[in-house]
Amino acid sequence: MADRAASPYLPCFSILLQPRPSSILSTGSLVAEKAILVVGAGAGTGGAIAKRFAREGFVACVVRRTADKLRPLVDEIEAAGGRARAYGRDARKEEQMVALVDEIERDVGPIEVAAFNVGANVPASILEETARKYFKIWEMACFGGFLMGREVARRMVSRGRGTILYTGATASVRGREHFAAFAGAKHALRALAQSMAKELGPKGIHVAHVIIDGAIDTDFIRTTFPELHALKDRGGILDPAHVADQFWMLHAQPRDSWTFELDLRPWMESW
Amino acid sequence: MADRAASPYLPCFSILLQPRPSSILSTGSLVAEKAILVVGAGAGTGGAIAKRFAREGFVACVVRRTADKLRPLVDEIEAAGGRARAYGRDARKEEQMVALVDEIERDVGPIEVAAFNVGANVPASILEETARKYFKIWEMACFGGFLMGREVARRMVSRGRGTILYTGATASVRGREHFAAFAGAKHALRALAQSMAKELGPKGIHVAHVIIDGAIDTDFIRTTFPELHALKDRGGILDPAHVADQFWMLHAQPRDSWTFELDLRPWMESW
Amino acid sequence: MADRAASPYLPCFSILLQPRPSSILSTGSLVAEKAILVVGAGAGTGGAIAKRFAREGFVACVVRRTADKLRPLVDEIEAAGGRARAYGRDARKEEQMVALVDEIERDVGPIEVAAFNVGANVPASILEETARKYFKIWEMACFGGFLMGREVARRMVSRGRGTILYTGATASVRGREHFAAFAGAKHALRALAQSMAKELGPKGIHVAHVIIDGAIDTDFIRTTFPELHALKDRGGILDPAHVADQFWMLHAQPRDSWTFELDLRPWMESW
Amino acid sequence: MADRAASPYLPCFSILLQPRPSSILSTGSLVAEKAILVVGAGAGTGGAIAKRFAREGFVACVVRRTADKLRPLVDEIEAAGGRARAYGRDARKEEQMVALVDEIERDVGPIEVAAFNVGANVPASILEETARKYFKIWEMACFGGFLMGREVARRMVSRGRGTILYTGATASVRGREHFAAFAGAKHALRALAQSMAKELGPKGIHVAHVIIDGAIDTDFIRTTFPELHALKDRGGILDPAHVADQFWMLHAQPRDSWTFELDLRPWMESW
Repeated sequence: MADRAASPYLPCFSILLQPRPSSILSTGSLVAEKAILVVGAGAGTGGAIAKRFAREGFVACVVRRTADKLRPLVDEIEAAGGRARAYGRDARKEEQMVALVDEIERDVGPIEVAAFNVGANVPASILEETARKYFKIWEMACFGGFLMGREVARRMVSRGRGTILYTGATASVRGREHFAAFAGAKHALRALAQSMAKELGPKGIHVAHVIIDGAIDTDFIRTTFPELHALKDRGGILDPAHVADQFWMLHAQPRDSWTFELDLRPWMESW
Repeated sequence: MADRAASPYLPCFSILLQPRPSSILSTGSLVAEKAILVVGAGAGTGGAIAKRFAREGFVACVVRRTADKLRPLVDEIEAAGGRARAYGRDARKEEQMVALVDEIERDVGPIEVAAFNVGANVPASILEETARKYFKIWEMACFGGFLMGREVARRMVSRGRGTILYTGATASVRGREHFAAFAGAKHALRALAQSMAKELGPKGIHVAHVIIDGAIDTDFIRTTFPELHALKDRGGILDPAHVADQFWMLHAQPRDSWTFELDLRPWMESW
Repeated sequence: MADRAASPYLPCFSILLQPRPSSILSTGSLVAEKAILVVGAGAGTGGAIAKRFAREGFVACVVRRTADKLRPLVDEIEAAGGRARAYGRDARKEEQMVALVDEIERDVGPIEVAAFNVGANVPASILEETARKYFKIWEMACFGGFLMGREVARRMVSRGRGTILYTGATASVRGREHFAAFAGAKHALRALAQSMAKELGPKGIHVAHVIIDGAIDTDFIRTTFPELHALKDRGGILDPAHVADQFWMLHAQPRDSWTFELDLRPWMESW
Repeated sequence: MADRAASPYLPCFSILLQPRPSSILSTGSLVAEKAILVVGAGAGTGGAIAKRFAREGFVACVVRRTADKLRPLVDEIEAAGGRARAYGRDARKEEQMVALVDEIERDVGPIEVAAFNVGANVPASILEETARKYFKIWEMACFGGFLMGREVARRMVSRGRGTILYTGATASVRGREHFAAFAGAKHALRALAQSMAKELGPKGIHVAHVIIDGAIDTDFIRTTFPELHALKDRGGILDPAHVADQFWMLHAQPRDSWTFELDLRPWMESW
C-alpha cells in the first residue's frame, strides 16, 4: 500500500493486533486484502462507514474530490489500527471511476463492499432553479452512483459476491416544494439501487438502500442549525457511527435474509 | 399564426364553429388564444393530446426534435378544424426551451397547458449500460421535463392558473432489472412533478402525473410486438386517444378537486 | 319500481326528458334498468355520487343504516327527474348485503356500478383506543366494503362487466398518530380494492380506489370546522359534486384505459 | 419462575454464565427480569425470536393458542440455558391479552420487547371468500396485533422505553388476486405499526415492521412446497434464526437511529 510504504515508521497496528490469516498472500503485497470503496467520504456518514469497515479489517478506500480533505479521516483510521487509502477523484467522471476501481482491485484487493454517499442538496423554488444546478445535483447524487455501481458490479459479478450500499433520504421517496432537484436525484438513485438489487441479487450481489430521515451530527448541522444540533445529547440527531453500524449490518446479513431498504430516524423525529 | 398565414385558403373551422369570445383580441392577431404546449408529440400519446386539446379550441404547439415529422400531426389537426403549430426543438437544450416558451407566449397566446411526453427506454443490464446512454435517457425523459416545467411555470404563476402534465410509466414507481436508466429518469420526473405540484398548487397551477402501465397503440408496438398489438381489438393495449382524454379530464378538473396522480392500464393487464 | 308505483302522481321526468332506448324492456317493468348501488349515501360524497349517476339514467339504490335519513336524497334525485330507491341496511351484516343485492338485481335491474363510501374516523391515541371502537371502525370502513364488493362482483362477473368504486383517504396510504384504527381500516380497504382490481379486471370488472385528501364540503365540516369551511368559496374544500364527477369519469373510462387509483385534493391543500 | 421450579435439576446456565446485576432483585422473585413477549410463537419466526432474545438474557414469554404446542420451544430455550414461559392464550381476546400482560409484568418483569408474529393466510378468490374467513384472518393477523400493541405500549410509555415489533409480508404493501383477506389484514397491521411508531417514538418506544418477502424454512414449507424447501442449502429460503437476528438488531438500535421498516428476502428471490 503506497501510503504505508511512504510511512514505514507507522506500525500497522491492525495487522499486528488482528491477524487475519487470509489477508496477506505474500510479503509486500496487499493484493487479496478485502477493500471497501466509499465514494463521498466526508466528516459524516461516509467517513463513519470507512471507519466502521476498517475496524472489521477492510482496507478503507475513501474517495472525494480533494484528496487533501481525506487526510484527517485516513489518519484517524490508521491511528485506530486500521488501513485506509485516500483517492482524490471526481465521482461524476466515468474514466476516473473506471480507473479507480481498476487501481484498487489491482493494488489493494477485491472491492467487497462499495458505499455511495454523495449528497448535494441545495433547495430552490422550481421557479428559480437553474438548469446548471438541477443537472449538477443529479450528476453528483445519482450519476456518480451509477458509475460506481456499474464498475464495482462488474467485478463483483465475476466473484459471485459483494455488497453495494446507497445512502438515501426522505427525498428518495417523496417530492417536496423546493426539492425538485434533490428529490429527483434521490428518486433516481433509489430506482438505480432497486433495479440493481433485482438484477444482481441472483448473481450473489447484495444491493441495499438506506433512507436517512433526519439530521446527521456533522459540522454542517452544528454550524448551520445549532438548535437542531442541541438535540444531540438526547439522541435527536443521527450519530454517523450508528448509521455506519447499519451499513455494516447490511453487509453482514446472510444471503437468505437480505434487506433492500431500511429507514433510519431519531426517535423524536416527527414523520 | 405563421402556418395559417401561409394557408389563407384553409378556413379556420374551429373558430367558425366554436366561437370563443375571449379568444381573438384583434383582427390579425392570435395573441390571447390559449395554447397547449406538447413536448414529445409523436404518433402516440403526445400527438393524441395535441389533437384532443385542439378539438377544445386550444392552439396545439407541438414539439419534437425534427419539425418535419410533425407535419402529418399538424395536417390532421387542421383538417379537423383545429389549429396547430409545429416546432422543431431539442427539449434538452435550455436556450431552445426558454426561447420556445417566449415565442409561443408572444406569437400564439398564453400557454394554459403544457404536457411533457418524451420517452426514452432502451433496456440494458446494469453491467452493460453505458454512461452515455444512462445520461441521455435521463436528459430526454427527465431534464427536458424540468426545462419545460420551469419555463411554463414561470409564466403560469404570474397568471395564477395553468396545467402542467407529465407522462409517467410503471418504471416511475418501481425499479426493475435492466431498467436502471429508464426507471431512474422516470422516478426523477415523478419527483419533479410531485415537488412542483406541492409548490405550485397553492399558486393556482395544477401539476399532474399520469402513470401508463401497459403498451400503447403505436407504430412501434405494431411493428415490434405484433402479438401485443393483436390485443387491440379486445382493448388489450391503450388507445392514445383515451389516454389523451384523461389529460383533458385532468385539465378540466375544478380546483377544489385536483388529481396529482392516476394510473392507466388495459383491463386485461396483469399487474 | 315499487316507489314509483306507490307515487303515481310523481312524473318520471328522467324518462320523459332523457329517453334511453335500452332502459325499459317492457311496460310496467323496470327490470333491465341499470342500477348503481351506493353504500354509505350520506349528505356528502355518497349522496353526490347517487345524484350524479341518477342524472345519467341510473336508478340510484342508496343505502345507509336508517332509511328515513335517505328521504331528502331520494326526494332531491326525483325532483331532478331521476330515480332512486332507499334501503335501510347495515352494511356490516352479511345476510343483509346478500339479500340487498338479490333484491336490487331482481326488482330494479343489474347493478352496473357499486360505490362504497362508508366513513368512520374517530381519532384516538393508541393508548386510549378501545377494542370495541378499533373493531367497529374496521367493520364499518372495511368489512362492509368486502361484503358489498364480493356480492356485486359475483353478479358482475357473470355479465363480464361492471364498476366497483371505493372511497379512500390519505389514511389509506399513510398511518399517523391517533389514526391507528382509521388508517388500519382504510389500508385494508385499499388492499381489498387492489386485490379485487387485479383479479376482476381480466374478468371485465373495473375496480377503482379514490384517495380523497382534504376536507369535503359537508354539514360535519361546516359545523365542526367552520374556519375550514370558510375556504369553500376559494375552492379550499372539496365539493362532493366534483368528487362524484370523478366517480362517473372512472365508470366511463373505456376498458383499454382503466384507472385503479387517483387522488383528489383542493389546490391549496398542503401535502 | 414456575417452569424452573418444576425442573430444579435444570441448571440455569444463563444466570450462571451471564450475571446481570440488575436482573434478580430478591431470592425467589423474578420481578425485574426483562421479558420479551412473543405472540405467535410457532416453529418458525416466532420461536426463533424467542430463542434469540432468550440467548440475550430475556425471559421469553411465548404465546400461542395451545400451550402444549409450546413445550418443545420452551424445552429448547431452557436446554440452551435460557428462560422461557409458555402461555396458552387467544391473541384475539381482549381480556386474555390484558390479563396476560398484567401477569407477565407482575410475575416475570417488565416487558421490554413485544413481537407480534401471527400469520393467517388462506388464499381465495374474492368471489369465493367467506365473510367468516375474511373476518378471521383480520382478527388473527391484525386485531391481535392491536391488542398486544396497546397493552404493552401502556406499560412501556410509563417507563419511557420499549420495543414493539411486527412481522409483515409482501402482502403488507401490495394487494394481489386471491389475497384480499390476507393483504387487508397485513396492510391494516402495517398501518397500525406506522401509526404507533409515529405516536410512540417521541415517548421512547421503538415500533418497527419487518417485511418478509419469501418463504421461511418451516415444517409447512418443507411439507407443502418441497421444491421450494430444496433451495434451503443455497440460501433460497429464509432461515428463521436470521430473521430473528434482525428483530434483535432492531431492538438493539440506539434511539438516534431507529428503523421503522425493513424488508428481508433471499438473494435469489425474484421481486
